[in-house]
Amino acid sequence: MNPVLVEVTRGDRVESRHTGAAIAVDADGGVIFSAGDVDAAVYPRSAVKALLALPLVESGAADRLGLTEAEITLACSSHSGELLHVAAAASMLAKAGRDASCLECGAHWPTHNVSARTLSASGRQPTALHNNCSGKHAGFICLACDRGIDPAGYVKPDHPTMREVTAALADVTGAVLDESNRAVDGCSIPTYAIPLRALAHGFARFGTGHGLPPARAAAAKRILAAVAAHPHMVAGTGRFDTRLMTALGDRVFSKTGAEGVFCVSLPREGIGIAVKICDGATRASEVATAALVERFLPDAPQAPGFAALAQPILRNWAGVIVGEIRSTVVAS
Amino acid sequence: MNPVLVEVTRGDRVESRHTGAAIAVDADGGVIFSAGDVDAAVYPRSAVKALLALPLVESGAADRLGLTEAEITLACSSHSGELLHVAAAASMLAKAGRDASCLECGAHWPTHNVSARTLSASGRQPTALHNNCSGKHAGFICLACDRGIDPAGYVKPDHPTMREVTAALADVTGAVLDESNRAVDGCSIPTYAIPLRALAHGFARFGTGHGLPPARAAAAKRILAAVAAHPHMVAGTGRFDTRLMTALGDRVFSKTGAEGVFCVSLPREGIGIAVKICDGATRASEVATAALVERFLPDAPQAPGFAALAQPILRNWAGVIVGEIRSTVVAS
Repeated sequence: MNPVLVEVTRGDRVESRHTGAAIAVDADGGVIFSAGDVDAAVYPRSAVKALLALPLVESGAADRLGLTEAEITLACSSHSGELLHVAAAASMLAKAGRDASCLECGAHWPTHNVSARTLSASGRQPTALHNNCSGKHAGFICLACDRGIDPAGYVKPDHPTMREVTAALADVTGAVLDESNRAVDGCSIPTYAIPLRALAHGFARFGTGHGLPPARAAAAKRILAAVAAHPHMVAGTGRFDTRLMTALGDRVFSKTGAEGVFCVSLPREGIGIAVKICDGATRASEVATAALVERFLPDAPQAPGFAALAQPILRNWAGVIVGEIRSTVVAS
Repeated sequence: MNPVLVEVTRGDRVESRHTGAAIAVDADGGVIFSAGDVDAAVYPRSAVKALLALPLVESGAADRLGLTEAEITLACSSHSGELLHVAAAASMLAKAGRDASCLECGAHWPTHNVSARTLSASGRQPTALHNNCSGKHAGFICLACDRGIDPAGYVKPDHPTMREVTAALADVTGAVLDESNRAVDGCSIPTYAIPLRALAHGFARFGTGHGLPPARAAAAKRILAAVAAHPHMVAGTGRFDTRLMTALGDRVFSKTGAEGVFCVSLPREGIGIAVKICDGATRASEVATAALVERFLPDAPQAPGFAALAQPILRNWAGVIVGEIRSTVVAS
């Protein structure tokens, strides 16, 4: 059983507890922090979108199609469906000579409530452009079209574009990805169960370029700079990744995945981090991630906005403080 | 460490796990099922609303004010803020000679998305009537006004009305409720940490009247009948409690509480059940609750709509089946 990583308090008691596993490694894969079973394979879900975006940049497709840095960031995002996200996804598809009808991610209402209500008030329904994964999918379509490949069916494991991005994920993490560890993600692409240790090492490589071919290392560097410059594009208003990277700039790259996963790079420190909360709770993976970032960037709490991520205060509907969410093992 | 009660799968792997504690007792408090630490005190949150509503009925206030069975149900509800919920809360307050300005629960957008979007499209903002606890609060105000007590400050532990409903909760569960185990709930009323065993016993008493004074037993019986006749009022469209009681009618009373708590009565079997998921996840408390109901009502799966509660199938945004949520310990 994995240890408790995060506690949620109410009054003077712990009301809920989140167990999990977390690991931090250096660029050679040397373990510098570990809690719980870090060799168990977990589905990283959206936490590896930046690795899946490497071929888009590395191949030159992004430049040939004239993608902006904000659009490259959107290819790595789980966005909130705000207007600027939807517009950027549409722009990416237009640059590939396509439109939203090519997206195979399915439609859902924007997770940003104000955007959802505004959309509804206009009498319209959400489209696949509002899906939090539309930027990643638009990136796959850009890559396919740039290579002259029909994007239809790009979500399938055997589509040439999906094979190309899956190979990048396998190479950077060092994990074997095949049908034995494959499932279907929320947006219909494959997700592969990967040991937390390998995910952390992958993000140490991603952040440093260490052990990557030069073109891939350059692509990683460019993606890191793009996301650091456009943190709103990788998530959205009020979201953890956006707030963390707004607070710390290019000192940190973080990406959430569904079911309590986080992958992080600290490029200057050469550190990769991976977190999985057993029960899948995002509130816990966020606090554990912030605590690990603080462990290796001890001055992080001085950055405006960071403290509220590391130890969120819980208020009720009347604004009364009722408790907090706090890291236990990780921050000790 | 409590055992895993619920697993969430994706493909052929378990992606997330929820630990918890659960207990079922008969009307004498005899344990007929137990998993995990059932003597640990947990905040029941909204799961005890029906017990807090006992004085409203038992005192005769509900009858003197002419509350309908649907309104009595709303007093026990965590509703979704749909039009019929909001209208019933307003009606209750009007019958007490008051209006929404007396509510001290705070405002939030309806949790029913369609209702939230409709409200937004009308250009209005949510009020305290939309708060999921507005029915409970309206019930407190009705009780206060019927007794000639000024309802102002009714959310405070020492207000006479809050003392009266807290005494009912203490009597039915047999738990000591004082400042040593008190915290503030999401709607600003006190919530008291109570051992799961005592909660289960309280709901066995509530369902059977066993060990309660006659007037209280009669009030419990009337509340059970009201909720069974108006399951939509206790939660809302698509919600677990509403679906479970729609499927099984007056054979079951169930009530969710925040942070993974459920309290259940099986009146005919004379059984009370209490569940707490350690991490606070509602998806897990729902599935564990359905599994426990099925354990004691083995024909429950024959009721239309029950199977989808006991083992929900997970589909992604494109409608593809990606996994399921299943009970482990409890259903074995």
